[in-house]
Amino acid sequence: MDFSCPIPVTGTDRVLLAHGSGGRLMHQLLSRTVLPALGGAGLGQTDSAVLSCGAQRLAFTTDSFVVTPPFFPGGNIGSLAVCGTVNDLAMVGAKPLYLSLALLLEEGFAIAELEEILASLRGEADAAGVTIVTGDTKVVERGKGDGIFINTSGIGVIEHTQTLAPASVRAGDAVIVSGDPGRHGIAVLAQRTGLAFETSIESDVACLHRAVLSLLEAGLELHCLRDLTRGGLASALVEIASDAGQGIALQETAIPISPPVRAASELLGLDPLQIACEGRFVLFLPTDQADSALACLRAQPHCRDAARIGTVLAAPGVTVETALGTRRVLDMLSGSQLPRIC
Amino acid sequence: MDFSCPIPVTGTDRVLLAHGSGGRLMHQLLSRTVLPALGGAGLGQTDSAVLSCGAQRLAFTTDSFVVTPPFFPGGNIGSLAVCGTVNDLAMVGAKPLYLSLALLLEEGFAIAELEEILASLRGEADAAGVTIVTGDTKVVERGKGDGIFINTSGIGVIEHTQTLAPASVRAGDAVIVSGDPGRHGIAVLAQRTGLAFETSIESDVACLHRAVLSLLEAGLELHCLRDLTRGGLASALVEIASDAGQGIALQETAIPISPPVRAASELLGLDPLQIACEGRFVLFLPTDQADSALACLRAQPHCRDAARIGTVLAAPGVTVETALGTRRVLDMLSGSQLPRIC
Repeated sequence: MDFSCPIPVTGTDRVLLAHGSGGRLMHQLLSRTVLPALGGAGLGQTDSAVLSCGAQRLAFTTDSFVVTPPFFPGGNIGSLAVCGTVNDLAMVGAKPLYLSLALLLEEGFAIAELEEILASLRGEADAAGVTIVTGDTKVVERGKGDGIFINTSGIGVIEHTQTLAPASVRAGDAVIVSGDPGRHGIAVLAQRTGLAFETSIESDVACLHRAVLSLLEAGLELHCLRDLTRGGLASALVEIASDAGQGIALQETAIPISPPVRAASELLGLDPLQIACEGRFVLFLPTDQADSALACLRAQPHCRDAARIGTVLAAPGVTVETALGTRRVLDMLSGSQLPRIC
Repeated sequence: MDFSCPIPVTGTDRVLLAHGSGGRLMHQLLSRTVLPALGGAGLGQTDSAVLSCGAQRLAFTTDSFVVTPPFFPGGNIGSLAVCGTVNDLAMVGAKPLYLSLALLLEEGFAIAELEEILASLRGEADAAGVTIVTGDTKVVERGKGDGIFINTSGIGVIEHTQTLAPASVRAGDAVIVSGDPGRHGIAVLAQRTGLAFETSIESDVACLHRAVLSLLEAGLELHCLRDLTRGGLASALVEIASDAGQGIALQETAIPISPPVRAASELLGLDPLQIACEGRFVLFLPTDQADSALACLRAQPHCRDAARIGTVLAAPGVTVETALGTRRVLDMLSGSQLPRIC
């Protein structure tokens, strides 16, 4: 089984699969091609844009979902399409209100599967308290798509006055992860490859806005939030540290990786810190508020395993202190370890 | 050359290409499968949702673009992705403000083509006065996509108090089209099939919000607007008449079809009233305001050929009085005449 793809040493004139994997090549495509072409001042630092609307602040975000297969243990592309966009809104502390839904179907896709996906999507939206208000449906010929792709865009309202962004991160901040990472990626991969593990691993896909809102309601001073999608915990932390101009020291033993995910990762030769989640986030806040944040999170259904995993340092770089007391440097994904996980 | 596909007499358990063509089968997919599953009260009647945001009214819409080929005379998928969404906002009389941009790339797509598309997209957005504020990029394997698909979602602000929707249409209303229909579909089709016509036909792709805002600023009482995309003028009128519970009588000789589009349509065996546009709309308003609306429109760069083409009747059905004085019933597209035109 080969999950990697060759990484060109220099630039490339064609889109590579790794350009979509949340790692270094995707970063390059965005920073060299997409962002310069668009030149939006607000593009890049957070997944959601923050917009003024009269006296209110709105969050606006978009996400396409191309996960294969579309059904996996713990969810499907429909529930994922709601959670992914709701979570992008939640990461700027917004209360999600409205979603758009764009279906891109391949000729021949089973209507029964579409119905099942839409039912999950609706169920997840209802549970999250968001309304699907507008939509679009396109069909492409057989062989020009892959069953179903979904785009959701979302609007939320921001009722706090904090600036949740890498620029707010300070040396000394505590780094907290909201739960055990890596289950989504392993669940999709197991489904894709037909692997069966001793313990069945379900995706962590979940909406995180209530957990974030509970932190804000508790009056905590949040500096930065990031959901762990493509590229996993490692990419999120490396990106935030780099954007913040700070470093992070992590304690490997503090990261609550579940035994089944650890075992599956070892079997597959994957680093669990680089595996995508769809219901986990990291949180940066002042150290003296870490315990309150943990108490708050652990009271939420999807965050019972929340843990403090590290501290922000003034010196750049993300390092992990291993169980053996050694240190390794954490980097973002370089190639295309796990394509089409979301 | 066969542009149609077989239409099943009864239901189907698989997605057909015609399910995406803006005609009867797409209507069925939406009304039988998608809308019941989602159950949103506001879904379906207009492409844009109208949302309350404090004291303001916002419009929110989404559109995916799968046009093939991505480059065509008069534009490309980038300019199209801006105009399509801006126009959906314009059709509820909103002033477009913000766009999201989701790129769905197939492995192997040329970076140079991506750059050209993004440059067009940026140019069109700048010209329209909209800002791209958030984005997403996904990559799928070779053979699982088709070069490039784009989704844009848009937010606009509604500064008028009218209700622009089929329910506002009244018997006696004038029906106006903003320009010559069908150029977009013919331009894409010519590019796709390598056909060369005597006169080169360029797509009508254009942003229509300034034309609509000028009608509102003139104080006109607008009842309903609809941009003519998939399914063309015919589908738009049949849909509006049906949703309004009214009929429409059209004068064929009044419809400003350009001679090159007429010639190309005859050559290809297509009905020009069913061919997609991307820079044309129909407008319903009280008859005594028709001349003012026409004057207003003809002062706008993309609406110089605006014309009154018919009148709303209390009796249902859309009929066309032909040049010979006979009447034919106009229906929406049944099959998949022109797939992937937008």
